[in-house]
Amino acid sequence: MDSQASNQSRNPELAKALRVIVGSDAVVTDEEALRPFECDGLTAYRELPLMVVLPSTIEEVQRVMRTCAQQSVPVVTRGAGTGLSGGALPLSDGVLLSLTRMNQILDINDSTHTARVQPGVRNLAISEAVQHLGLYYAPDPSSQIACSIGGNVAENSGGVHCLKYGLTVHNILQLKVVTVDGELITVGSEALDAPGYDLLALMTGSEGMLGIVVEVLVKLLPIPPVAQVVMAAFDEVERAGDAVAAIIGGGILPAGLEMMDNYAITAAEDFVHAGYPVDAAAILLCELDGTQDEVDSQIAKVEKILTEYGATDTQVATDEQTRQRFWSGRKAAFPAVGRISPDYYCIDGTIPRRELGTVLTAISSLSEEFGLRVANVFHAGDGNLHPLILYDANKEGELEKTEELGNRILELCVEVGGTVTGEHGVGVEKLRPMCLQFEDPVIEQFHAVKAAWDPHSLLNPGKAVPTLARCAEFGAMHVHQGNLPFSNLERF
Amino acid sequence: MDSQASNQSRNPELAKALRVIVGSDAVVTDEEALRPFECDGLTAYRELPLMVVLPSTIEEVQRVMRTCAQQSVPVVTRGAGTGLSGGALPLSDGVLLSLTRMNQILDINDSTHTARVQPGVRNLAISEAVQHLGLYYAPDPSSQIACSIGGNVAENSGGVHCLKYGLTVHNILQLKVVTVDGELITVGSEALDAPGYDLLALMTGSEGMLGIVVEVLVKLLPIPPVAQVVMAAFDEVERAGDAVAAIIGGGILPAGLEMMDNYAITAAEDFVHAGYPVDAAAILLCELDGTQDEVDSQIAKVEKILTEYGATDTQVATDEQTRQRFWSGRKAAFPAVGRISPDYYCIDGTIPRRELGTVLTAISSLSEEFGLRVANVFHAGDGNLHPLILYDANKEGELEKTEELGNRILELCVEVGGTVTGEHGVGVEKLRPMCLQFEDPVIEQFHAVKAAWDPHSLLNPGKAVPTLARCAEFGAMHVHQGNLPFSNLERF
Repeated sequence: MDSQASNQSRNPELAKALRVIVGSDAVVTDEEALRPFECDGLTAYRELPLMVVLPSTIEEVQRVMRTCAQQSVPVVTRGAGTGLSGGALPLSDGVLLSLTRMNQILDINDSTHTARVQPGVRNLAISEAVQHLGLYYAPDPSSQIACSIGGNVAENSGGVHCLKYGLTVHNILQLKVVTVDGELITVGSEALDAPGYDLLALMTGSEGMLGIVVEVLVKLLPIPPVAQVVMAAFDEVERAGDAVAAIIGGGILPAGLEMMDNYAITAAEDFVHAGYPVDAAAILLCELDGTQDEVDSQIAKVEKILTEYGATDTQVATDEQTRQRFWSGRKAAFPAVGRISPDYYCIDGTIPRRELGTVLTAISSLSEEFGLRVANVFHAGDGNLHPLILYDANKEGELEKTEELGNRILELCVEVGGTVTGEHGVGVEKLRPMCLQFEDPVIEQFHAVKAAWDPHSLLNPGKAVPTLARCAEFGAMHVHQGNLPFSNLERF
Repeated sequence: MDSQASNQSRNPELAKALRVIVGSDAVVTDEEALRPFECDGLTAYRELPLMVVLPSTIEEVQRVMRTCAQQSVPVVTRGAGTGLSGGALPLSDGVLLSLTRMNQILDINDSTHTARVQPGVRNLAISEAVQHLGLYYAPDPSSQIACSIGGNVAENSGGVHCLKYGLTVHNILQLKVVTVDGELITVGSEALDAPGYDLLALMTGSEGMLGIVVEVLVKLLPIPPVAQVVMAAFDEVERAGDAVAAIIGGGILPAGLEMMDNYAITAAEDFVHAGYPVDAAAILLCELDGTQDEVDSQIAKVEKILTEYGATDTQVATDEQTRQRFWSGRKAAFPAVGRISPDYYCIDGTIPRRELGTVLTAISSLSEEFGLRVANVFHAGDGNLHPLILYDANKEGELEKTEELGNRILELCVEVGGTVTGEHGVGVEKLRPMCLQFEDPVIEQFHAVKAAWDPHSLLNPGKAVPTLARCAEFGAMHVHQGNLPFSNLERF
């Protein structure tokens, strides 16, 4: 491509108008400079945006939105770009609105245990900024070093600790939101609950489709005085799954309850030497937190249940070093699996906890049927599965087979009362599985809600909610039992 | 009125059509029989509905809605009618849809800790039905003997224990909803979270404006093995308020944390002899639950904080009988206050907890300024105030003065970052305070969301969200500092 041409904006008038608002250095039109923005964490999808705009203030966001709305230019908002479902995939004819410059912690209130932050603040930066007060921000997606709080709100992010401490929606009080026509509104309140429709919950997890989050009031929690981990080994995956349901059913609410199967265990052990039993079919990592008394009493109960459910071995990390070591394998599990296979595809589905044992067994059968290895490492306490399908993209047809297996697993999730995405969002990746999840009237209602916020569909159009036509088309080609039901990776 | 005429429906064609759907005995048009439905718990507002329809099945609700939508007849849904803000006030030209016949518990699942119930099931009936499994349903509004779960969802009800266990929205997983045009949709999921916009949260607390809840999947919790109460006396109300903030700030999450001031204490003590210190300016009742170890450790911490914050006396109810006695005064507080004053008006506002001391002092000043006694008995842990203004409706002008004082208190709540309703809903009572709470763009957004569900405004029209015109009119007449800002009880 001609370098001269590539440096020119495809809509110079718009670029000029936006430069007046945000300054020359905050509008990117050069192709090379646009390149880093062409995808988010779902790298299979790439698109160069028309331009990238980097506002620094709420007022700039409002003025940019007014200009784009007047000219009917679609806008995709992007935080840190760590999302795994393509929610921040740019549009070739749209503005990519990057909020990375809005990265200030505006206020920390020690007496109310809240912090007011801009959307570009990194998740972990909040906890770091309040650590000296003995506080932290609870939701901890595995990308927490890099991901931003605005993106967390857009995806309603969870993490290892969301079993006990809730998702993003449970850990925020108030949002400032810029609407598609540049209006600034405040939703939620500093107090318990707020009157009127729950726009705070509606906005949370809406994947940039309803408005632009420009300020977040987050709740902070006291750092628990003690946290300890129990590691339990099982010689059958199903038993480990049943033990998870029994722990929660027994009235214990662990701070985290994670499960890894043998593929994940051995991969992690080879990689970081966490001290995992490599001959176990599955391990559970169960973290309890609170005062020492509380933790002691809970650990005793958990060990009893684990033994009852057939754990072949249980170990308690009684010191912080051992606790960190136990977690190191879990945290490194994804890259560890990456070492034992040329490629892997991470599935994200949820199921009711009672179905854990059954579904894991079924996944194992499907794995055999497809001749593809599946490593399981996931948030067992939440029933949030992350089967990692191991494949080799260079082998002809293996990607397609992998996608088919992934879809079969998601179908299984829906069949037992679960969902096609737990914490990674719908974005562009899960549009077709959404047709599997929802009946037409619900999809229609989603579109009606979207239109109530964004009547001309300028905010992140084409994401998160499939069109009815698309679902109809999918339904027509959808054949159960063996034939390809849909392709996630087909271009949306 | 001529008795013959009063027995005739004002829309006999509609009555006939609906009788075909639900049966003759399930359509009420006789004036005498309509009388019990003319108001809910907010008895100051009364209106006879066009007719009352009592469906028994989801399909009947769907068919009734289709018929009403076709004929553009508005529909007000009613549960047990215990609401305190007039959300179930009938419309003279509308159908009152009573769901009392849909009162079956459809399924109890011991392994998932869930129950599937019809909307007319009483709140307490759920806990009673699962008690033998060691489970209960957590939200406990004070009307829990009578109120129904459908109404709880419509109002997002709380209760004494919502501090620790959350509001209704945190204790339900899935809803079946009939839309205005008779479509049946399912929102939420049996698993953690659900993809798409959070329609479950949007529906919860929407006061019958968006759809009709016809089935609820509720979460059940294990009954805590031990629950104990600490009662603390203070000689200044402000100190008690500060102690509340300190307890929560100290990382303790009591199962309940309630406060009563001297008016409430003495009224309750005279009525039920709970053993309260009648010379105290305020008492706190703080319930801790969990295992014995956990409760012991928490009680020790709470007692330390209470003493630090100037409690003149603390008593722990070490046996169940004493615990029940301590709670008996709190539970009887409203009727007890009713014994010391001809009338009282219960205000429902929330504030951030840190403002408790300040706001209680300000309410006390306002009470003096207006020459009206105010008793305070409320969910202190949530910052959910219930000032009871004592007045005599037979004294000329005292009702108006009472309303003015109530509004001043609500203004105060908004000024410190709180809300004009905590748990009683907006209904017709709080329409004007909503103008105080929200800027026009948010009100507009509420209307847009309403239109996305109910474009012709047939579901409970005129409730919960004020028109912009009404807010503009209110704004024009709104004068701070002394002059009547608005009248809650003015006809909507």
